[in-house]
Amino acid sequence: MSLVIIGTVAFDAIETPFGKTDKIVGGAATFASLAASYLYDQVKIVSVIGDDFGKENLAKITSKGIDIEGLQIKEGEKSFFWSGKYHNDMNSRDTLTTELNVLENFDPILPQSYQGCEYLLLGNLTPEVQLKTLQRLENKPKLVVLDTMNFWMDIALDDLLNVLKHVDVLTINDEEARQLSGEYSLVKASQKILEMGPRYLIIKKGEHGALLFNKDQIFSAPALPLAEVFDPTGAGDTFAGGFIGYLAKVGTINFNNMKNAVIFGSALASFCVEKFGTEKLENLDQQEISERIKLFTSLSQFTLEA
Amino acid sequence: MSLVIIGTVAFDAIETPFGKTDKIVGGAATFASLAASYLYDQVKIVSVIGDDFGKENLAKITSKGIDIEGLQIKEGEKSFFWSGKYHNDMNSRDTLTTELNVLENFDPILPQSYQGCEYLLLGNLTPEVQLKTLQRLENKPKLVVLDTMNFWMDIALDDLLNVLKHVDVLTINDEEARQLSGEYSLVKASQKILEMGPRYLIIKKGEHGALLFNKDQIFSAPALPLAEVFDPTGAGDTFAGGFIGYLAKVGTINFNNMKNAVIFGSALASFCVEKFGTEKLENLDQQEISERIKLFTSLSQFTLEA
Repeated sequence: MSLVIIGTVAFDAIETPFGKTDKIVGGAATFASLAASYLYDQVKIVSVIGDDFGKENLAKITSKGIDIEGLQIKEGEKSFFWSGKYHNDMNSRDTLTTELNVLENFDPILPQSYQGCEYLLLGNLTPEVQLKTLQRLENKPKLVVLDTMNFWMDIALDDLLNVLKHVDVLTINDEEARQLSGEYSLVKASQKILEMGPRYLIIKKGEHGALLFNKDQIFSAPALPLAEVFDPTGAGDTFAGGFIGYLAKVGTINFNNMKNAVIFGSALASFCVEKFGTEKLENLDQQEISERIKLFTSLSQFTLEA
Repeated sequence: MSLVIIGTVAFDAIETPFGKTDKIVGGAATFASLAASYLYDQVKIVSVIGDDFGKENLAKITSKGIDIEGLQIKEGEKSFFWSGKYHNDMNSRDTLTTELNVLENFDPILPQSYQGCEYLLLGNLTPEVQLKTLQRLENKPKLVVLDTMNFWMDIALDDLLNVLKHVDVLTINDEEARQLSGEYSLVKASQKILEMGPRYLIIKKGEHGALLFNKDQIFSAPALPLAEVFDPTGAGDTFAGGFIGYLAKVGTINFNNMKNAVIFGSALASFCVEKFGTEKLENLDQQEISERIKLFTSLSQFTLEA
């Protein structure tokens, strides 16, 4: 029984209206596994880094009990690096640098101890590698969640459509849902996307929350209204990690648990954006998380008179 | 005991990607009073029309039991007329025509039977007339809700700030909240606006739902995800009418009832956009409304494991 998360473990350099960082720890698998680690204790990652990543940075991951047997360290090579600058509205950003480095020839290796995993998160990465990971598992996991972005729709749509046939849940944002489906209405978009393979679709709407769809039901989760979004980097990955981490914990897949998983994913993402990079996610405690869940409850739950 | 609604009763001509109408019945007081009439049976309107409005159109209002003693009919004059065209995303529109007509010299008359009203909705209209209405009530109502729009912030900000000092609830959309406060973050915007007078602020976010704020609490209501928004005209007025209509029905003002009122307002607004103008609002029944409320409940309510 375990949750396997594949994605990047990398460096980011971020500029927002609130400040600027040097190279700090980032990457989809980093954010997602940190988030999941607060909910489930058998989290394993598949990724690749260079020997520049450093022991201290690695300890941010391993200190949470996250298994890194599937994390390849390439001697003499450099870790993936991304830098970007957020606009004043914090909803849009410009990519300043993308250095693929070790990611260029990334061939995911799944250690024997990862076989038999019940939960798999295919974090944001080239769809070809996502598919390869899935194929290298001897048994199909109970639940496969795929996170992706517009970039892969632009340059690797066929591969993406191919891997989509094999996943249970897709998480994308509203603009990506429109791009993937060719439909402006998110209801129509969801109908088309659910025909591409996934049984569940989550549309992330940033400050407007998230929508969960299956063929017959819709759930609308709020986002926590924040006075300041400090750094949105990794919020989507954190959401995905919290989402699947919750489901791994409860162990039963149904629409009600999916709803709760969306709330936990949203709650963890609301922490993520409060500080630069992974800073906030490195230092959470269960008390804080449980209070944040209470906040989401009072934020969106109502009691109608009989 | 009654609910008084002031606003326009007017003609609209609407063009959307789905079609085009000739002059049809519109106006803030029309939408709001129709919505409120499904929840509360003592709805009275204050407005003005020309003799072109016609008995059949008036019957759309009076057939719902709405009191029109405060509706002035100006012989030889024309009703207010607005025409507009919605863009493909249905979130933005161009105004094609605005003919003030009877509205130009509108002096609100409050019949004696309206005195003692407990609930007052100051629908979208010039702030000067909104204030005049409030001043002509001998006793301050239990709850005063004000709806307005960016247009009045542009051309009559001082008057608007003046009337805001005397209201309990303000309803505006997200862009208007940003304009009024000068803050991008809606949390910061709400803090500033709540210092301008209202004890409660509702920020309408269209397809993203609505936020209710008081000084200490926030409630986030979903919007019903729709395959097609047919015509958004009047949705904000309908929301306001449903909101105050619910509160008039339950009779107690507290944050929990305010939450429910936001849900009822949202549910009625979700009907409004399904057809052109007031068409859908003219023909609802209690069964449909109760089913729509159930839909909002399943859409946003979750049950966490103990």
